[in-house]
Amino acid sequence: MNMLECPKCGVTVDVKSNHHVCPKCGEPLFLSTDLESIVKAGVKSLIPGNLKKVTLGEGRTPLIEYRNFLLKLEFLNPTGSFKDRGAAMTVSRALMAGWTTIIEDSSGNAGIATAAYAARAGLKVKIYAPADAPQGKLRLIKAFGATLETARSRDEAHRKALEDKEGVYVGHVVEPLFIEGIKDIALELVTSGVKFDALVAPVAAGTLFLGLYKGFEELVKIGLIDSIPTIIPVEACGYSKLSKYLKTVNIGCGDTDRSLLADALRLTIVPRIKQIVERASKVSPYVVVVGDEAIGESLKELYSIGVPVEPSSAAVYAAAKYVSKEMSGRIIVPLTGSGLKYVPVSNEVLDKYLF
Amino acid sequence: MNMLECPKCGVTVDVKSNHHVCPKCGEPLFLSTDLESIVKAGVKSLIPGNLKKVTLGEGRTPLIEYRNFLLKLEFLNPTGSFKDRGAAMTVSRALMAGWTTIIEDSSGNAGIATAAYAARAGLKVKIYAPADAPQGKLRLIKAFGATLETARSRDEAHRKALEDKEGVYVGHVVEPLFIEGIKDIALELVTSGVKFDALVAPVAAGTLFLGLYKGFEELVKIGLIDSIPTIIPVEACGYSKLSKYLKTVNIGCGDTDRSLLADALRLTIVPRIKQIVERASKVSPYVVVVGDEAIGESLKELYSIGVPVEPSSAAVYAAAKYVSKEMSGRIIVPLTGSGLKYVPVSNEVLDKYLF
Repeated sequence: MNMLECPKCGVTVDVKSNHHVCPKCGEPLFLSTDLESIVKAGVKSLIPGNLKKVTLGEGRTPLIEYRNFLLKLEFLNPTGSFKDRGAAMTVSRALMAGWTTIIEDSSGNAGIATAAYAARAGLKVKIYAPADAPQGKLRLIKAFGATLETARSRDEAHRKALEDKEGVYVGHVVEPLFIEGIKDIALELVTSGVKFDALVAPVAAGTLFLGLYKGFEELVKIGLIDSIPTIIPVEACGYSKLSKYLKTVNIGCGDTDRSLLADALRLTIVPRIKQIVERASKVSPYVVVVGDEAIGESLKELYSIGVPVEPSSAAVYAAAKYVSKEMSGRIIVPLTGSGLKYVPVSNEVLDKYLF
Repeated sequence: MNMLECPKCGVTVDVKSNHHVCPKCGEPLFLSTDLESIVKAGVKSLIPGNLKKVTLGEGRTPLIEYRNFLLKLEFLNPTGSFKDRGAAMTVSRALMAGWTTIIEDSSGNAGIATAAYAARAGLKVKIYAPADAPQGKLRLIKAFGATLETARSRDEAHRKALEDKEGVYVGHVVEPLFIEGIKDIALELVTSGVKFDALVAPVAAGTLFLGLYKGFEELVKIGLIDSIPTIIPVEACGYSKLSKYLKTVNIGCGDTDRSLLADALRLTIVPRIKQIVERASKVSPYVVVVGDEAIGESLKELYSIGVPVEPSSAAVYAAAKYVSKEMSGRIIVPLTGSGLKYVPVSNEVLDKYLF
C-alpha cells in the first residue's frame, strides 16, 4: 500500500488526503513506496504504476558523454525541464484526490510543467511566480492556459501561493508525489549500463536532490545497487541555504554577490531544508556555491559543444568541473532546464556571456 | 557496403566523396543502405553503425496518445526539432570525408541543428537563413557559434548557400545522409508496439517524408512489416509544391493567401520534388494544404493539452484532424518543432491565436 508518511514522527495519511506536510508535526511528507509491487512489475519504474494517471512523455532522457562527464539531458522533457517528471505525479495525485483547481509557486520551470500537465488533465491551475522571472517562462505558463499571479520575489510567490484558498496548494517545494516523479532518474542511470562515480545536483527546493536520493535509496533496498552514490549539491551565489550546515566550496562568489543568471536557484524558503541537509551530510563531502562568472563561462562551453541549456543548469556543470579536479572517475551532470526558453529572447546579462 | 546511389541512373559514389547529387544526371542521391549488416546487428537502428560519428542524444522520442492520434514528440530532440536526427548524420559524413567547414541553408531549425552538431564535432559552419525567420531561431544558430548569413527569402538563402565556396555545401535539402538520420522514426514507430493506420508528414524540403518512406521501405525489405503505410504530405498556404501533382485538400486557403505562421514550411525550391511526388503518389490519397486560421486553432488546441510545439507543427495536426474524418483508425502525427523557441518571444501573429 502506498501511503504518505512523516519521516519525523511516522504518522501516515492517504495519498488522496489534502496533506503535504505532517498533520501532527508539520514536517513535509514522503511517499512510503510499495517496493514489493515495483519488484513484481520488474523494476521498470520506481513509481508505483497505479499512481501515475497522466503523461506527456516525460522521462527516459538521453545520457551523453563529454570528457569525464555524463550529461543527463533532463531539459529534453516535454516542457523543457526535469520538473515535468514531478508535475506528472503532482497532477496525478490531484486527479486521484479529485482536486479541480491546483495552486503552485515557482521560479518558472515548475510552473510551466504544472500548467502543462494540468492542461493535459483538464484541471484549473494558478501559478505564483516572481515578476522578474524570465519573461519567456512567464509567457509559457500563460500559453498553457494557467492563471499567472506575479510576486515581488521568489519567496513572496511561495508565501502568496500558500495563502490562496481558491484551490489546493500542490507546491513542488513540499508535494511528496513530486519527489516520487524524480526517482526514475536514478533508475535510468543505474540501468543505463554506464558506470559513474558521483553526481552533482542543483538545489533550490531540493526536489531533484531528494528525488535522486530516494531513488537510489530504494534501489539499495531492492538490491540493484550496494550503496547510495555521492551526490554533491550545487547552489548559486547569494542563495545558498546549505553553506551554513555543510563544508562549502565557493566558485567565485563575493560576500554580497547575488546570482543574476541562475534564476531557477533563487528560492530561500525551503520547507524540506532539514531533510536535504541530513541526506547531503551522508552523501556529499561539501556543497558547491557558484558565481555568475563561472556560470557564464560554463554556459558558453556547453553551447560550444551543442548543448542548449539554461543558465541555472550551467551552474551545475561549473560545479562538476570543480569536482572532477578533486576526484577521479565519471560524474553525472543532470542538465535540468532548456535554453530554448531563454536564448530566443534578447537578454543583456545572458548575451554578454553567450555571444 | 554503404554507397551513395543515383535513383535515376544508378551511378554510385563513395560517402566520403563531395557528391550530394548524381555527378552524371544531377538527381539528388540516396544512400544504398547495407541492410544485411543492419539485420545482423539486430535491427536496433536503420542507420549503419559505422556511419554515425557524432551524437547529442537525438532520437527515441516519446509517443503519446491523444484521441485517435499518436503524437510523436520529435520536438524533444536535443535542439528542439527532428532535424537533429539528420544533422547528426550530415556532420558524421563531414567527419568521415574530412570537411572542416560546412555550409547549410535553412528556415531555422535545420540551421540550429547543424550548428549544434558541427559545434559538437569541432567543425566550422556557415548557415544561410531568411532574415525574417523567427529571431529566436536566428539567435540560437549564433549561440552555437555558427556564422549566420541572412537572405531576403528562404529560397534566396538556398541559392546563396549553393554559391558559397568557402566550405562544403551540406544542405539538408539534398544531403543523402540527412535522410538516413530520419529513418529511425519509422523503426521506432513500428517497434513501439502501438498499432497505427496512417501518418501525416510536413513537407518543405521533404526530408521527413522521404526519410519516413525510406525507413518503412527498408523495414519491408527486412521483413518487419508487409507494406509502407499511408503517409499524407502536409504543406502551408502559398507554399505548396505538391498540389499541382496530387489531389489537394485545402483547409482554409484563399488563392492568394501565404501562411505567416508556418515559417518552417516556406521553401519552394525543392531539389527532391520529383522523388517526393513519385513516392507520395504511391502512399497518399492526397496532399493537405493548411491555412493560418486552421494552424492557429490547432496550435491553441495543442497548448491546451500541454504540448508546446511550433506553429508549423500545428499545421500537421490540423491536417491530421481532417484525415481522421476521412478514415477510421489511428494516425501518427509527428510534431517536428519546439514551441519553446517561439512562445518566449512576443509575436503579434502568434499571440493572436495563443493568448
